[in-house]
Amino acid sequence: MTTTANNHPLHGLFEPQTVAILGASSDPNKLGGRPIRFLRDGGFQGKVYPVNSRNAEIQGYPAFASIKDIPGPVDQAIIILPATACQAALEECGEKGVKVVQVFSSGFAEVGPEGVLAQKQLVATAKRYGMKLLGPNCLGVVGVVNRFFATFSTALEALTPSPGTISIATQSGAFGSCAYSIAIQRNMGLSRIVATGNEAHIDVAECIDYFAQDPGTKVICAAIEGCQDGNRLRAALLKAAQNNKPVIIMKVGTSSVGIAAAATHTGSLAGNDAIYDAIFAECGAWRAQTIEEMLDVAYFCSKLPVPQNDQAGIVTVSGGIGILMADAAETHSITLPELPPVAIQKMVELLPFAPIGNPLDTTAQVTAVKDGTTRTMEIILTETNWSTLFLYMAQSACAPKRFESMRRALIALKQQHPARCLILIGPSDDAVRLSLENDGFIVMTDPSRAVVAAHACITIAQRRKHLVPIHPRLATTHKLQQVQTEAQAKQLLAQHGLPILQERTCSTRHEAIAAAKALGMPVVVKILSPDIQHKTEIGGVILNLTSDQAVADAFDLVTQRAQTIQPQARIEGVLVSQMAGAGLETILGVHQDPVFGPMIMFGLGGISVELFKDVAFASAPLSQDSAQALIKRVRASKLLTGWRGQAPYDQQALVDALIALSNFALTYCDQLEGVDINPFLVQHTGAVCLDALVTIRT
Amino acid sequence: MTTTANNHPLHGLFEPQTVAILGASSDPNKLGGRPIRFLRDGGFQGKVYPVNSRNAEIQGYPAFASIKDIPGPVDQAIIILPATACQAALEECGEKGVKVVQVFSSGFAEVGPEGVLAQKQLVATAKRYGMKLLGPNCLGVVGVVNRFFATFSTALEALTPSPGTISIATQSGAFGSCAYSIAIQRNMGLSRIVATGNEAHIDVAECIDYFAQDPGTKVICAAIEGCQDGNRLRAALLKAAQNNKPVIIMKVGTSSVGIAAAATHTGSLAGNDAIYDAIFAECGAWRAQTIEEMLDVAYFCSKLPVPQNDQAGIVTVSGGIGILMADAAETHSITLPELPPVAIQKMVELLPFAPIGNPLDTTAQVTAVKDGTTRTMEIILTETNWSTLFLYMAQSACAPKRFESMRRALIALKQQHPARCLILIGPSDDAVRLSLENDGFIVMTDPSRAVVAAHACITIAQRRKHLVPIHPRLATTHKLQQVQTEAQAKQLLAQHGLPILQERTCSTRHEAIAAAKALGMPVVVKILSPDIQHKTEIGGVILNLTSDQAVADAFDLVTQRAQTIQPQARIEGVLVSQMAGAGLETILGVHQDPVFGPMIMFGLGGISVELFKDVAFASAPLSQDSAQALIKRVRASKLLTGWRGQAPYDQQALVDALIALSNFALTYCDQLEGVDINPFLVQHTGAVCLDALVTIRT
Repeated sequence: MTTTANNHPLHGLFEPQTVAILGASSDPNKLGGRPIRFLRDGGFQGKVYPVNSRNAEIQGYPAFASIKDIPGPVDQAIIILPATACQAALEECGEKGVKVVQVFSSGFAEVGPEGVLAQKQLVATAKRYGMKLLGPNCLGVVGVVNRFFATFSTALEALTPSPGTISIATQSGAFGSCAYSIAIQRNMGLSRIVATGNEAHIDVAECIDYFAQDPGTKVICAAIEGCQDGNRLRAALLKAAQNNKPVIIMKVGTSSVGIAAAATHTGSLAGNDAIYDAIFAECGAWRAQTIEEMLDVAYFCSKLPVPQNDQAGIVTVSGGIGILMADAAETHSITLPELPPVAIQKMVELLPFAPIGNPLDTTAQVTAVKDGTTRTMEIILTETNWSTLFLYMAQSACAPKRFESMRRALIALKQQHPARCLILIGPSDDAVRLSLENDGFIVMTDPSRAVVAAHACITIAQRRKHLVPIHPRLATTHKLQQVQTEAQAKQLLAQHGLPILQERTCSTRHEAIAAAKALGMPVVVKILSPDIQHKTEIGGVILNLTSDQAVADAFDLVTQRAQTIQPQARIEGVLVSQMAGAGLETILGVHQDPVFGPMIMFGLGGISVELFKDVAFASAPLSQDSAQALIKRVRASKLLTGWRGQAPYDQQALVDALIALSNFALTYCDQLEGVDINPFLVQHTGAVCLDALVTIRT
Repeated sequence: MTTTANNHPLHGLFEPQTVAILGASSDPNKLGGRPIRFLRDGGFQGKVYPVNSRNAEIQGYPAFASIKDIPGPVDQAIIILPATACQAALEECGEKGVKVVQVFSSGFAEVGPEGVLAQKQLVATAKRYGMKLLGPNCLGVVGVVNRFFATFSTALEALTPSPGTISIATQSGAFGSCAYSIAIQRNMGLSRIVATGNEAHIDVAECIDYFAQDPGTKVICAAIEGCQDGNRLRAALLKAAQNNKPVIIMKVGTSSVGIAAAATHTGSLAGNDAIYDAIFAECGAWRAQTIEEMLDVAYFCSKLPVPQNDQAGIVTVSGGIGILMADAAETHSITLPELPPVAIQKMVELLPFAPIGNPLDTTAQVTAVKDGTTRTMEIILTETNWSTLFLYMAQSACAPKRFESMRRALIALKQQHPARCLILIGPSDDAVRLSLENDGFIVMTDPSRAVVAAHACITIAQRRKHLVPIHPRLATTHKLQQVQTEAQAKQLLAQHGLPILQERTCSTRHEAIAAAKALGMPVVVKILSPDIQHKTEIGGVILNLTSDQAVADAFDLVTQRAQTIQPQARIEGVLVSQMAGAGLETILGVHQDPVFGPMIMFGLGGISVELFKDVAFASAPLSQDSAQALIKRVRASKLLTGWRGQAPYDQQALVDALIALSNFALTYCDQLEGVDINPFLVQHTGAVCLDALVTIRT
């Protein structure tokens, strides 16, 4: 058993010296009997104390009537009692001075209001005694390296894990068991697995935080259904990234109803799924869509060095597989550069029969050249700095004897180029594969899946260079006034640095004409009402007015239309404003996420946001770089650079506006519900908010 | 050995009684020795005749100096000689009356012009003697059921296949070997595998055609890099679909340069990849993106009945996995309906502790209910007609003894509901899995992958109901005139039933004013020149002209601008046309595909086609139904039904135009290069071509 000095609050959960099981059973197949059997048969080296008032001995261990009868300190207690008995048992644990308690029992928050209450009581008790609580309704913990099999999951019976450096934290026990099973079937080495269940106290984020500082963990897999404390999750992910431990995380529930509380358009556009995407990226994690993908990426990260760039070479004995992989590389943003001239020259000498390129198709004739394949790889590794090299080796690794010389040559190559990611593709004999893996190679069967996982590794490495720290929420004493109309919203935004056009609120025809004269024609007249949000739809906006008479007529017309269509609407007059010039319509927004705080949204106007979901989020505040990156993540932002020969738009003005908006969002994050600037017109020079909605929390 | 009467030209390739090997070697590891070893060791029951002038006996078989010395008829010859010796050998095969020849030798079209010539000679010789030719440069044929191992691939040494009903045809040998290897590692039963190499004569399409009528094949996998004869491929796919044999096909090369010959905008927008998507869908095939996906779908199709609808139920012991699968179902268009009231009532009685829904989370407590899981499934199967039912069984199938009663209950369920697709998910003991598979169940480890493959099966079944037959190309004697200008293009389209506005070509200011008066103001004035295609960009279009003076000024202005910006352009005057009303801008096109003939393209105007690749193709001619389906495949076509409260557009007018365009494309498919109607304005009532480009072949 490894016993490292470790002050992390969860150390007693993962590395206890003494464990008491409350509700221990003599039947090794019952829920209360399984953990004891697993700990005993698994070879756990710590002390195991069954607690059960009816037996003096349980499964070979002396049993105790109460946890308080156990001599000496108890690091961890596992409670497997009926829900109604848990509270009293937890009290006893507290009195005994236990550090960590796992509650496997169900019948709490998952069953309804009564359960919620009982669960709250558990947490209060745990906190009162300074105990950490896992569960309730959880599947427990597995430590593969320290043989700590503290679970009742039958997955343990079915499949024996091999020790390694990948740790897994999931909310759902079945999710964890599923990942555990697939990992073992693939011979992936595991370190620790934990399922947090109802997460009354310890959540997945806190487990990630533990793994981030755990010497036994190199790669972290995680799966969540929701998140209560956004900053805790962020902090844990950032800590892992800073400690160079890749986190591969799944967030399920993308098809469920979005954030209910989202009042603004921005919120309803996104659902919370795009927010999770943004947060995971900012914190250096990779979001996997399937369990298999999560494990593929974990496997890659556990074996490969950190890729230094997104460039890759492909060596293949088959043109067809080369094309398949090149297609996948393009889809997944892996660059396949041309070979440099020196490399081409060397390659022509080595393989005069082969068409030289990248993918490099050695053709089957490569077998006639001694060490032809590895020498080809050697040339690429020596003459380029591409971080990744794929080899499609067909079925050569299926025949261990014939493959032996190739295996040796590959290992020599790896030793000469330890910083490169070498990925071998093709079916293989199990022993050959394990040996290659031990020498730091990846061995995959499906070519496309190898490309996808390599891309994830590259992305994690790139994200690590641009981590977004958690920004403290600013506490402002200034209280925002309620914003009723477009005019007020724009004035508020203008006060915080966003560009608006000059405009005036007018309540009579006369005022409107005077305003138009003062602003300079042509002008726009818009109806002004706190009750009318879709002004254009009711004909409440008239553009391009060039005379006094036209302005006066427009005043009458929009007022009349508003009164006819929305007779109940409070009309505060009209807004007379300057005409904006030509430009590109974009949408800027603030979404106050209940979990992650102020998020800035960007998208293009028109159909691209609503129809193609072409929208991106980033957390506030934005820097020049992160604002640029946010814009770039929107596919339609290509239009900004000039499209079909149009002049480029003023991207710096857009960046400045996004930064100003993000600062505003952060400053008032406790008061602001949301902001929707739609359209925000980006012009060839400058930019301007044409319409805005600001929602203040009541 | 099965010997069915079969008149298919490729019968001798897959089911020969006698095989001669030209270039046979005594060394069982050499290229010329391997097929003999594989046939002997594999237990091929036909006659094997090594041909080699130097030996009297080869690997235990009597050898012959020439194929002509072999007594009796020879069904198939395999040539493994240097490229230069192949032609003479083929001649001898012809003289001997051989039906099918495989040429494994390389050094033909793949090495350059000389090789191309030699290859052409081979084909000419084969045709002269009425022989079918596979290859050259091919990996050969494997018949798992008839033990016909006619290949030199070392994949045979590495992995022994088990007999089954899945056949695989690939152009690339390595592609085939890779699929073969993965299939065997997964214990998938295989029937026949063929790699067509250079496809000088027999291509993948012809192999699909054979499989489509082969009693030994139930499911067909195929992979192509290109296609020479589009109609042959279509016919083969359609034949397979009509014979209820699913085809899962890969087409690699999506990242390569698009169709070089494509002259029109339509062509350059698409590349040929979207065309393949359309053709595969019309012919009932499923296009797989990865080898693993191809095999997943083949596995599903080989075990499951044909799904009758897209509705599915999910039963799971884990909420988390249920959510993961529900997310995947939404992404992949599988409907998860609500349970009917009767089923809910029964379910509440059976599982009072479980939250009833779909996914149905039985919770872990289901183990306390006798046959709880299978009774849950029984209720769903009895009370709904959902074609598919997923069961996430966690790791229960890993423990064969404990799983036995569940296995029996599952089999009973399957017998009662033979027409349902039952998909079990979770890790499993190999023997348990094989037994379940034999009883018609699917057993998958990864939940998401199971959903993806189920969706493919459903899609194949749906496509089979809407197969698009190959339409004979119409031969028209009428010769199209060259089309120089927008006006001519629109006139031509109008003659073929497409709606255009009234317009007149005018070469003087005076004519323009007269035209405007005759058409009725307001009008549009556009520059008319065969050399100017982007009229708007040069300011060559002026809208909304309401007076004689305005029309005259516009005439001068557009002429002047054209002369200034493109001084070389031949100017034929201006086009004066009626103003179109409001409407939705769409793009209609014809792409004369060199492989598949006239394809009709549809997309929305603006950025959706170019930026989001939101475009769809269908082959001409279109019916009411297929035109509707084409429109539906475009994501942005939602706008047609009215967006944000706008009135719906005249979809029937759009359908009529697409049909008219498709008839025009088909009628002139030998003369027409392409058509690009952009924009085609769909109005609330009616529709109209606002601009058009027609390219005639010269």
